Amino acid sequence: MFTIRNVTAPTKSNLLKSVCSRSMASKTPVGFIGLGNMGNPMAKNLMKHGYPLIIYDVFPDACKEFQDAGEQVVSSPADVAEKADRIITMLPTSINAIEAYSGANGILKKVKKGSLLIDSSTIDPAVSKELAKEVEKMGAVFMDAPVSGGVGAARSGNLTFMVGGVEDEFAAAQELLGCMGSNVVYCGAVGTGQAAKICNNMLLAISMIGTAEAMNLGIRLGLDPKLLAKILNMSSGRCWSSDTYNPVPGVMDGVPSANNYQGGFGATLMAKDLGLAQDSATSTKSPILLGSQAHQIYRMMCAKGYSKKDFSSVFQFLREEETF
Amino acid sequence: MFTIRNVTAPTKSNLLKSVCSRSMASKTPVGFIGLGNMGNPMAKNLMKHGYPLIIYDVFPDACKEFQDAGEQVVSSPADVAEKADRIITMLPTSINAIEAYSGANGILKKVKKGSLLIDSSTIDPAVSKELAKEVEKMGAVFMDAPVSGGVGAARSGNLTFMVGGVEDEFAAAQELLGCMGSNVVYCGAVGTGQAAKICNNMLLAISMIGTAEAMNLGIRLGLDPKLLAKILNMSSGRCWSSDTYNPVPGVMDGVPSANNYQGGFGATLMAKDLGLAQDSATSTKSPILLGSQAHQIYRMMCAKGYSKKDFSSVFQFLREEETF
Amino acid sequence: MFTIRNVTAPTKSNLLKSVCSRSMASKTPVGFIGLGNMGNPMAKNLMKHGYPLIIYDVFPDACKEFQDAGEQVVSSPADVAEKADRIITMLPTSINAIEAYSGANGILKKVKKGSLLIDSSTIDPAVSKELAKEVEKMGAVFMDAPVSGGVGAARSGNLTFMVGGVEDEFAAAQELLGCMGSNVVYCGAVGTGQAAKICNNMLLAISMIGTAEAMNLGIRLGLDPKLLAKILNMSSGRCWSSDTYNPVPGVMDGVPSANNYQGGFGATLMAKDLGLAQDSATSTKSPILLGSQAHQIYRMMCAKGYSKKDFSSVFQFLREEETF
Amino acid sequence: MFTIRNVTAPTKSNLLKSVCSRSMASKTPVGFIGLGNMGNPMAKNLMKHGYPLIIYDVFPDACKEFQDAGEQVVSSPADVAEKADRIITMLPTSINAIEAYSGANGILKKVKKGSLLIDSSTIDPAVSKELAKEVEKMGAVFMDAPVSGGVGAARSGNLTFMVGGVEDEFAAAQELLGCMGSNVVYCGAVGTGQAAKICNNMLLAISMIGTAEAMNLGIRLGLDPKLLAKILNMSSGRCWSSDTYNPVPGVMDGVPSANNYQGGFGATLMAKDLGLAQDSATSTKSPILLGSQAHQIYRMMCAKGYSKKDFSSVFQFLREEETF
Repeated sequence: MFTIRNVTAPTKSNLLKSVCSRSMASKTPVGFIGLGNMGNPMAKNLMKHGYPLIIYDVFPDACKEFQDAGEQVVSSPADVAEKADRIITMLPTSINAIEAYSGANGILKKVKKGSLLIDSSTIDPAVSKELAKEVEKMGAVFMDAPVSGGVGAARSGNLTFMVGGVEDEFAAAQELLGCMGSNVVYCGAVGTGQAAKICNNMLLAISMIGTAEAMNLGIRLGLDPKLLAKILNMSSGRCWSSDTYNPVPGVMDGVPSANNYQGGFGATLMAKDLGLAQDSATSTKSPILLGSQAHQIYRMMCAKGYSKKDFSSVFQFLREEETF
Repeated sequence: MFTIRNVTAPTKSNLLKSVCSRSMASKTPVGFIGLGNMGNPMAKNLMKHGYPLIIYDVFPDACKEFQDAGEQVVSSPADVAEKADRIITMLPTSINAIEAYSGANGILKKVKKGSLLIDSSTIDPAVSKELAKEVEKMGAVFMDAPVSGGVGAARSGNLTFMVGGVEDEFAAAQELLGCMGSNVVYCGAVGTGQAAKICNNMLLAISMIGTAEAMNLGIRLGLDPKLLAKILNMSSGRCWSSDTYNPVPGVMDGVPSANNYQGGFGATLMAKDLGLAQDSATSTKSPILLGSQAHQIYRMMCAKGYSKKDFSSVFQFLREEETF
Repeated sequence: MFTIRNVTAPTKSNLLKSVCSRSMASKTPVGFIGLGNMGNPMAKNLMKHGYPLIIYDVFPDACKEFQDAGEQVVSSPADVAEKADRIITMLPTSINAIEAYSGANGILKKVKKGSLLIDSSTIDPAVSKELAKEVEKMGAVFMDAPVSGGVGAARSGNLTFMVGGVEDEFAAAQELLGCMGSNVVYCGAVGTGQAAKICNNMLLAISMIGTAEAMNLGIRLGLDPKLLAKILNMSSGRCWSSDTYNPVPGVMDGVPSANNYQGGFGATLMAKDLGLAQDSATSTKSPILLGSQAHQIYRMMCAKGYSKKDFSSVFQFLREEETF
Repeated sequence: MFTIRNVTAPTKSNLLKSVCSRSMASKTPVGFIGLGNMGNPMAKNLMKHGYPLIIYDVFPDACKEFQDAGEQVVSSPADVAEKADRIITMLPTSINAIEAYSGANGILKKVKKGSLLIDSSTIDPAVSKELAKEVEKMGAVFMDAPVSGGVGAARSGNLTFMVGGVEDEFAAAQELLGCMGSNVVYCGAVGTGQAAKICNNMLLAISMIGTAEAMNLGIRLGLDPKLLAKILNMSSGRCWSSDTYNPVPGVMDGVPSANNYQGGFGATLMAKDLGLAQDSATSTKSPILLGSQAHQIYRMMCAKGYSKKDFSSVFQFLREEETF
């Protein structure tokens, strides 16, 4: 979806400096913590690019595949930090990320000065900032780099990374992230990677629900769904949810709505991201009238059996026929 | 905005039939009722294409310019219907349209059999259907053809018409509408022109508010507005409101947000269209959770002094700084 | 629920005047149009008070019971108007009311001068005003008098009537309405009876959903439902929905939540009333942010199988357990 | 507002046990941390009841008054804990509470075994639970006891305390809280005091906005505000906001709406409490469709200059006249 690689072109001297401050040979080991649905294919792409890995996951089974392939498995995030000066973390929630960094056996217990710690988890930007502060105290560098794109993009190395952190270190992060994604976008200070992702997904949720409501209303008013989609897409109602990922079965091929809303981006995950948007809006006192409502709608959907369906199934949620 | 002209290509025989059933010479007089901000430039474009006009407006002053130009001004919609068998109406509300058609001196009092009556007002599709029934009883043809595009597009002849009515008559409507607009889209049965417009504008309102909320939240979280817009536009949050009409001052040139929200499409007009969406949703029992909220937000804006500002000023409405 | 009878005490002279202008004997026939779930027991209460009835319903079967009891059944609203100078109408929608008054065989076709026409349907106040104008042109009197209280209250003669119309005629209306209800409240000009009912029911819907949300959140946070209800009812969260009609099963006896949400006031009926509130708010340009959302929530509930359950089942709708 | 004192009557033996485990003489010093608008009069009420105080506030000026009165002022929460085995904290936010308990010079640094720590701050119940765990590890007891009632109630000793914590310790808490409030309600396990307060205030916000919307709509539909309030209060729309704290100027005396919305409970404070409700709902995955919207409405109000007005000023916020 993203088409640019270098929003910022760091100067050569910066590039040199950051590379020099770590292992000279670029293919020294990289730490990877969190080998779940997303972390697993991401780590494999690093392997394909020749990086030896130092692996840790709370579930030992998740590491087995990598051990069999000859990678080194250790028994805590602290141990990863002892053996690698570049580490990527990919964890499900803020709490898991805090544990991995600041826990009793967390990275910070043994992190080396000058290490580069990249967190690709999607978490509260306030937590990212907090972690960055603690990391900085240890003389290391923290960047938040949440991803856009699902398991498929993770496998094919086509993720988008939205990166927040010190600009001088962006090139160093790019070296690794570029192995796993086709777009690496520099967003600003620490936390702005998360912020960009959260804002995008909130707008996505709003426009998806809006598309579902408009399509449903139009159909009830007698319009043909394909024709209505065509009209919207030529006009000012056009959005990614209407022209690329239309939620109405029969309008487009190759999207979840064409396949009973299987696959794609689950309603639960959208509810989680909207929860983060809500938290950020509350703490910055930003009004999000529709964002907040979108959050509640995905909450309701999860309570009504849509949690594993693609988030475009909101069309189905609205549509069920009235019985009176 | 619309890029197609013939969604439907009527067959030649239909074309002949409908033309033959009315005045043979195509430049016989055309009736025009409602010479307001939009009607005035629309009527002028018909004149430019050589159509003599039969004019009526409830405000005689609105007709003066046309009288001076040699067009015929009459004193009621009924009189228009007596002298013209093709009539275009362009009125502000459902009530005005009902009056013009079914009132004591309305079109229906003197309409000729076989006449083509095209209503370009934006009104409740249920009213369009009701008018169509009454017109049909008199042996004439009714089509709803609301426009997209503002006064500028009306002047330059670049409006988009969304047309509902009997398909056989579409070509006849197109002959006239094509003089005033660059896109004439056939939408289906009577009322679907209104339905398409209403659905588009509801989705537009939702995605505009969503864009304003996402941009505002991102800025408060430390993102640069231009960079955030760039990221959204490369990603799944992309929509017309973010990539073509961004509501944040400084992000784009040549849009109302670059000019203190002057010009464009006023919040009052958006509130009116959302009121129609609300009415249609209520009568068809379609849930519109965000559409309904968008409606209320534009209502609030109108109550708070934004009524004449462009509808993208919702960004400003949300943004005003908190004082604590 | 209502505890006052005479909000307004009309003066004796007014009372005399209005009585004198119609049939002198108070037990002359009363017309009754609409013998549905509500109309049937209401008409029976008039019979119990000794009023002979002139009956009409679009479904002849609805009249049979009354015919068997010796009441006179006629074949149109016009015929009712010919034989009775006091008529009560009790119809499901605005459209039915318009038909009964202004239709081809409507009341207005044969209404006598000085007749008193009382509409107890719950309809759009704008329609009530429109009907009142037409009735007035015929030299008769129209009052809107929607009811509060369901079928049970209709049977026991304990309805509340909210009455709008000329104050001088209130006593005459009260004579009849007092046979069917225990509270007859004068609200002001024509349409204000509807307005009062609509506003009350909108606030009821909002506070019911609010109660359901607060109870559900509290339970999830570990509070005992009965204790939470007790705390709310001692405090500023107290409302009719929390202290008289609590939506949480197990908190109170004798309410629909204690009986699987059977009986009571169906979600469909609440959705209908909220639709009227929405229409009134749109036409008066009044922002109703929560009212509008409440409307959409009841719409969704109707689409999800709650249409016949009591409106307090919104607690169940919110509560269904999440599966992840 | 609350009318019960002992929801739970602890058994005598429990009462003895908890009293015995601390200072035998009941008038031994009590620690008090946080002497702001609320804490100041609360602490004074403890003094009036004869309790010597050990005082701390981050702003030394806040302590001066107490020092002059002969109370002991110390320089950190840890020092308070060293000198008192019963401590009350009254702080503005979760972050302040965490700092006071777990900070570098926090209570936990020097807390004695068996101490009773009562937090009357209004904070996230999840934070209360976290603090309780840490306190328990030190062998002390933690209770959350947020208050209802403003500065006036704090001065007159008429606050309501909603208390969460081990039931056996409730009597000990009651001894102190009863000096500052007229109602002390036991709510359940730690965190339920906060939960009860949050749920009540969320429902309060919803019914206040609902009352404002219903009153405004009714007025625009032609109803007299006093009469409408009377009708609502007799009927199912009745709530504390309509019958005790009506938001419409002229309807009631002695409420903020009668005094230009001065005094009372500020919109900012309501927005804060709704933020806590939102956080709790997000973390427990409870849908709060109207609660969430109420939160956003108070956010908007704060951004529009209503932050210091009473929260019933939402009526004014909705009402400002439209200009078209």
